[in-house]
Amino acid sequence: MNSTIWMNPDDLRREIREGRFRGPTAGHSPGYTQGNLAILPREFSEEFLRFCRLNPKACPVIGVSEPGDWRVPELGEVDLRTDAPAYCVFRDGEPAGEVLDLRELWTDDMVGFVIGCSMSFEEALLEAGLPIRHIEQATTVPMYDTSIANVPSGRFGGTMVVSMRPMTPQQAIRAIQITSRFPGVHGAPVHFGDPAAIGIRNIEQPDYGERSEIQPGEVPVFWACGVTPQRAIRTARPKLAITHKPGQMLVSDVRNSHLAVF
Amino acid sequence: MNSTIWMNPDDLRREIREGRFRGPTAGHSPGYTQGNLAILPREFSEEFLRFCRLNPKACPVIGVSEPGDWRVPELGEVDLRTDAPAYCVFRDGEPAGEVLDLRELWTDDMVGFVIGCSMSFEEALLEAGLPIRHIEQATTVPMYDTSIANVPSGRFGGTMVVSMRPMTPQQAIRAIQITSRFPGVHGAPVHFGDPAAIGIRNIEQPDYGERSEIQPGEVPVFWACGVTPQRAIRTARPKLAITHKPGQMLVSDVRNSHLAVF
Repeated sequence: MNSTIWMNPDDLRREIREGRFRGPTAGHSPGYTQGNLAILPREFSEEFLRFCRLNPKACPVIGVSEPGDWRVPELGEVDLRTDAPAYCVFRDGEPAGEVLDLRELWTDDMVGFVIGCSMSFEEALLEAGLPIRHIEQATTVPMYDTSIANVPSGRFGGTMVVSMRPMTPQQAIRAIQITSRFPGVHGAPVHFGDPAAIGIRNIEQPDYGERSEIQPGEVPVFWACGVTPQRAIRTARPKLAITHKPGQMLVSDVRNSHLAVF
Repeated sequence: MNSTIWMNPDDLRREIREGRFRGPTAGHSPGYTQGNLAILPREFSEEFLRFCRLNPKACPVIGVSEPGDWRVPELGEVDLRTDAPAYCVFRDGEPAGEVLDLRELWTDDMVGFVIGCSMSFEEALLEAGLPIRHIEQATTVPMYDTSIANVPSGRFGGTMVVSMRPMTPQQAIRAIQITSRFPGVHGAPVHFGDPAAIGIRNIEQPDYGERSEIQPGEVPVFWACGVTPQRAIRTARPKLAITHKPGQMLVSDVRNSHLAVF
């Protein structure tokens, strides 16, 4: 698959659409924004859009389709039905299998949401020379359920999920500066230090992803995570909801650098 | 003295110059930058300027006079000889008394340096609704000697002095964002959390200023402090050096908001 890494997003999406690329998208089309995908019935779309607006750190919307339309022009020539390598289907909030495209499931009733992802700010952190433990160790970022309540909107509510990266205080200060430039992809951290202060019982046991070792002199630094809207969708229990398969994202034409607000 | 608080800097400096205002300048001419003052013999001035350039977080220079000139036009119509309410004199690095003006001490051999001060970023923190313990408690900010080595320049070297403000992690993240906008007045913190990591033995016993209580859920947040250059000057032992009396600053025409880089 290495030949695909440096493809531009349009070519990479074509490879995916035509079934020649499968698997995680991390590292492919570097410099371009990859998004979390959430597809909902129209009767949930306004409530969900309000939920995202009320919880912008966890749910930074970078693209929304018109009802029934699989295109999201603001992100490039994307086709929501085919351009993620794989999808997860949820019926009444419960997992109902995976599919490789939505050609058969798509209906005129669907609205697609693309939500920013920490890959974009991680690229900026790495460019600044900051180490990211889970990337160094080729593991999935550790994620935790917290006691931080989301602002509810209709059937969407629940609590925030955070991702964690261990850093020294000096690295954390620099990381706060850098990620503050990227409010469209979770922005600045929501917490650092004591995990119990945000309701994390055991930092050694992430609720999602894999453990990252916190070394002497480091503190855990916590960012709002795109798993938050996925959990909110599951507890809202729409008849049908579809997300990308974790790690197998929608790659857009938007450059990560374009998301920097200064 | 309350009638002087809202004076513009030019009027406040005239009150000081003509002997009608004495004492701390904190809270006077709000919105305008107050500076730390260091006056050195010309044979030290280039070394000191290089020292400040090499250590910009601790020694952010906001104005320098020409040799022998008591004016600093970039800061307004200031007279370095008369416009601080009181001055400390050091001979061979040792305290040699205080004076109310430098009319008699000033010589053609002197160069004046004005160095940014945390009052400017504290104003921005307060405007953002962040609590500052030592201001709430009307005490002097606690300051500590650290093990953080300054980059040396000739006879100037030593270690960094830091000021400390206790905050919750959430407040600290916001404070990092806000103070990052003000590199001309110490900028972002240099450390947070474990005091021992930067060589502070006992957080309860500041080396300068007064103790600020760290409450449950708070961490100490440390900024580089303008006492750093004063200590470096004392250890460089110039035959004569003059600083402002602590708390009795030089008030400039530069608006704090003008120091924000974005």
